[in-house]
Amino acid sequence: MASGNSNKCKVATEAHDKEDALLSDVFNLTMKMAVSASRNRDNPVVRFKTPEVLERELNFGLSTDGVDNSELLHICEKVFENSVLVGHPRFFNQQFAGLDSYGLAANIVLDALNVNGHTFEVAPVLTMTELAVLKHMQKFVGYEDGEGVFCPGGTYSNMLAFNVARIKRFPESKAKGLYGLPKIVTFCSQQAHYSAQKNAALLGYGEDSCVAVKCDSHGKMIPEELERKIVETKNAGNVPLLVTATAGTTVLGAFDPFNKIADVCQKHGVWMHVDGAWGGSALVSKKHRHLCAGVERSDSFAWNPHKLLCAPVTCSALFVKQKGLLNKSHSLHVPYLFQVGKPYDESYDIGRKLVQCGRRSDGFKLWFMWKAKGDSGFEKVIDRAMDNAQHLIQALKKRPNFRVLDDEPEFSNVTFWYIPPSLRGRDENEEFYKDLAKIVPIIKHRMQKKGTVLVGFSPVADRPTFFRMTCVNEKVSYEDMDFVLDEIERCGADL
Amino acid sequence: MASGNSNKCKVATEAHDKEDALLSDVFNLTMKMAVSASRNRDNPVVRFKTPEVLERELNFGLSTDGVDNSELLHICEKVFENSVLVGHPRFFNQQFAGLDSYGLAANIVLDALNVNGHTFEVAPVLTMTELAVLKHMQKFVGYEDGEGVFCPGGTYSNMLAFNVARIKRFPESKAKGLYGLPKIVTFCSQQAHYSAQKNAALLGYGEDSCVAVKCDSHGKMIPEELERKIVETKNAGNVPLLVTATAGTTVLGAFDPFNKIADVCQKHGVWMHVDGAWGGSALVSKKHRHLCAGVERSDSFAWNPHKLLCAPVTCSALFVKQKGLLNKSHSLHVPYLFQVGKPYDESYDIGRKLVQCGRRSDGFKLWFMWKAKGDSGFEKVIDRAMDNAQHLIQALKKRPNFRVLDDEPEFSNVTFWYIPPSLRGRDENEEFYKDLAKIVPIIKHRMQKKGTVLVGFSPVADRPTFFRMTCVNEKVSYEDMDFVLDEIERCGADL
Repeated sequence: MASGNSNKCKVATEAHDKEDALLSDVFNLTMKMAVSASRNRDNPVVRFKTPEVLERELNFGLSTDGVDNSELLHICEKVFENSVLVGHPRFFNQQFAGLDSYGLAANIVLDALNVNGHTFEVAPVLTMTELAVLKHMQKFVGYEDGEGVFCPGGTYSNMLAFNVARIKRFPESKAKGLYGLPKIVTFCSQQAHYSAQKNAALLGYGEDSCVAVKCDSHGKMIPEELERKIVETKNAGNVPLLVTATAGTTVLGAFDPFNKIADVCQKHGVWMHVDGAWGGSALVSKKHRHLCAGVERSDSFAWNPHKLLCAPVTCSALFVKQKGLLNKSHSLHVPYLFQVGKPYDESYDIGRKLVQCGRRSDGFKLWFMWKAKGDSGFEKVIDRAMDNAQHLIQALKKRPNFRVLDDEPEFSNVTFWYIPPSLRGRDENEEFYKDLAKIVPIIKHRMQKKGTVLVGFSPVADRPTFFRMTCVNEKVSYEDMDFVLDEIERCGADL
Repeated sequence: MASGNSNKCKVATEAHDKEDALLSDVFNLTMKMAVSASRNRDNPVVRFKTPEVLERELNFGLSTDGVDNSELLHICEKVFENSVLVGHPRFFNQQFAGLDSYGLAANIVLDALNVNGHTFEVAPVLTMTELAVLKHMQKFVGYEDGEGVFCPGGTYSNMLAFNVARIKRFPESKAKGLYGLPKIVTFCSQQAHYSAQKNAALLGYGEDSCVAVKCDSHGKMIPEELERKIVETKNAGNVPLLVTATAGTTVLGAFDPFNKIADVCQKHGVWMHVDGAWGGSALVSKKHRHLCAGVERSDSFAWNPHKLLCAPVTCSALFVKQKGLLNKSHSLHVPYLFQVGKPYDESYDIGRKLVQCGRRSDGFKLWFMWKAKGDSGFEKVIDRAMDNAQHLIQALKKRPNFRVLDDEPEFSNVTFWYIPPSLRGRDENEEFYKDLAKIVPIIKHRMQKKGTVLVGFSPVADRPTFFRMTCVNEKVSYEDMDFVLDEIERCGADL
């Protein structure tokens, strides 16, 4: 029996050694193929392959038997090799970018804790770190006695705001539903994030209930237009429930006029939500926080540190000014989870504030980064991104074959067209810009296939498709910005 | 100028070296304090401290300046020291447990890719792995031509099913909302997960619209009761939209009679959703998949591999039998993200199927584990958990001072009471069980404070609070199960 046991132990130890060796190998590979690789500008940002080619080159199929550790390591190599280097200083495709070492370290700790962050009981330290960083962030938002919670993504944070506003206005609708209520209408600018409509559809208000308010030429909501729409809604016997004002629109990076919007909301008794998923981070910069002036007057505020603060994806927080509303709107008494008589104050159970049950404690990653950098470190990240954007806009203005959409952008989005040889010298009328728009995806995809640069593009309102660069990664230099413009010229030279 | 550049390079290299050293140190600490620590039964499962004590012992506060790397490493140590060891073989608190090395390795890769998994463009390989593992899982579910998507948790997966069912039945309600529609009613068993009500509240149907159908003594929904409720609903002029049948209820681990429920749903034209968050994994075991017989007749199926398959938290998938419905229900044309004319088939953009925009590619972790283990490896995990549960139930029956709720549980939940000395020899009537119920939290919290064992407890229907052990972690031995019972006896000896 004793020898049987010692044999069992030996087998277990051998299995553990093999597992540990794999973990070490994967970690070392990660350091080489993601962390180091993304620092080297000679590496491609992406080795573009279509799904069909990837399918041929990698064996994605699963079967009855597993493969051994050396094969697994080989798989990891192929995964890295064929993935986009988001941390590469020439990745400008989206509003997330970079690979922060402190964030990555925290993520590894979080992986190894592998816990569901819904109760203090199973996630004691993680809970405390989430609450601490929320409290700290809330000071920047300017709520004195509010509350916050981390959600899986900005769309989710915005969704909770939609729900909290509804439950606050019609408390009985939590139990009774929307039946019998007057029609709920929400408002956002024409250039707000698409989650406003998606959430309106999901929550039963309907996509059409989401009214798009006109913007000025900089992409800012026009408050007079908002008021007009609210009055129209009231006159039609419907309920203007909530306005989503945006801090940093997705495409142009515009900040809505929060104080004026707050005046309108106050006057008409409408919930003011700020979608600061992208631009909320400006709050941390003394130089740029003026962009958010007035957000402290809002009722709720969504902020995605996984964008401009470079926290690992996903990291999104929702703040609500009135304490207790999150719990009131989302809680349900569940005896097997939120037991009474726990040996701690049960208000520490984050799950009580959420619709979610299973959740990753995303706040921990941000807390750890904040410990490492302090406010001043994050301030540098933001100021650097803004400075890069300014450099880019100046560089664009100096180059004769580029046109910018907005030559004084407020934020770190820079938007522009390139004029290829075949279109030069023409009248710069509507037709001309429509032709420029056709060039944009061609050049983007050429750069994607070369692997030199990844940038985004989009149309907006009456402006046809243009390049959109978002500056995020603090490791981006002026030279990288210039490189992108050179590369666009190279890739468009025959067009 | 050249020397300026080389100086800049030197500074960058030094900074990188420091970051890499921190990452290495954190990884090594993780291996020691989470991976190895959770294998050693002599370590406490938890060092229980209240929020107030943690607050005193750790400095959670954030400030203007950051701290250095040695302090950060010290923080990580304290985080591990004060966290619950979910991978410890005596953690039975929830339906997630264990720390799978393959899952952890994949998680580290995912962290380092740090990408938003909404488009193939930025997440090419991750997309392919997610689609591959969904396709593989779907074969077990038994849908021939369905589709699936990974969601942040089971509540979210169930929520999408609620929405897809509504859009399928009332397509125009995506744009128009619930206004003017007849009242939507959903059904689930009395013992279904609380997400059914939470989602009904969130989506505007109202918590009350969720009808709890009676269960038999094993916790299974009674199909005749379901039909009665559906007929009542119809007679009242309301719409029976969806039935949530459960594969493995949270507390008792019961499987609803899927074939009979499918008959009822078919007859009355009601969407059949299966919440297999907990029990769906039984599908992978040849020995136990009979528990899920009939789920292939459902319209949608939620399955959380982060529970019984021990995939890292969170990992939850939703399957829908009718292809295209996810896109139809959730998509919105967004030119800056889902551009037309991409150099690949745009149906590979996972974000088109979801309400979410930002998302972590959770499916990759499961895909990698499946590569490592194969079906057969996962089968062993499930069979082992079931075998442990059987051992526990037999051990309980042999001990005179324990009473079990269900002496033939179908799944890996085992539920029981302990009779402390002061309550022995009494008539085992209702009062007696009410007194046993009071003992349960006392003993649980004593074990929690000792750090020896973490178990859950709950009441259900007319049975007062009892211990609930869920067997998940494959590293749990028979001896661990016996240890828990011994420890309960030790902790209850003076009661």
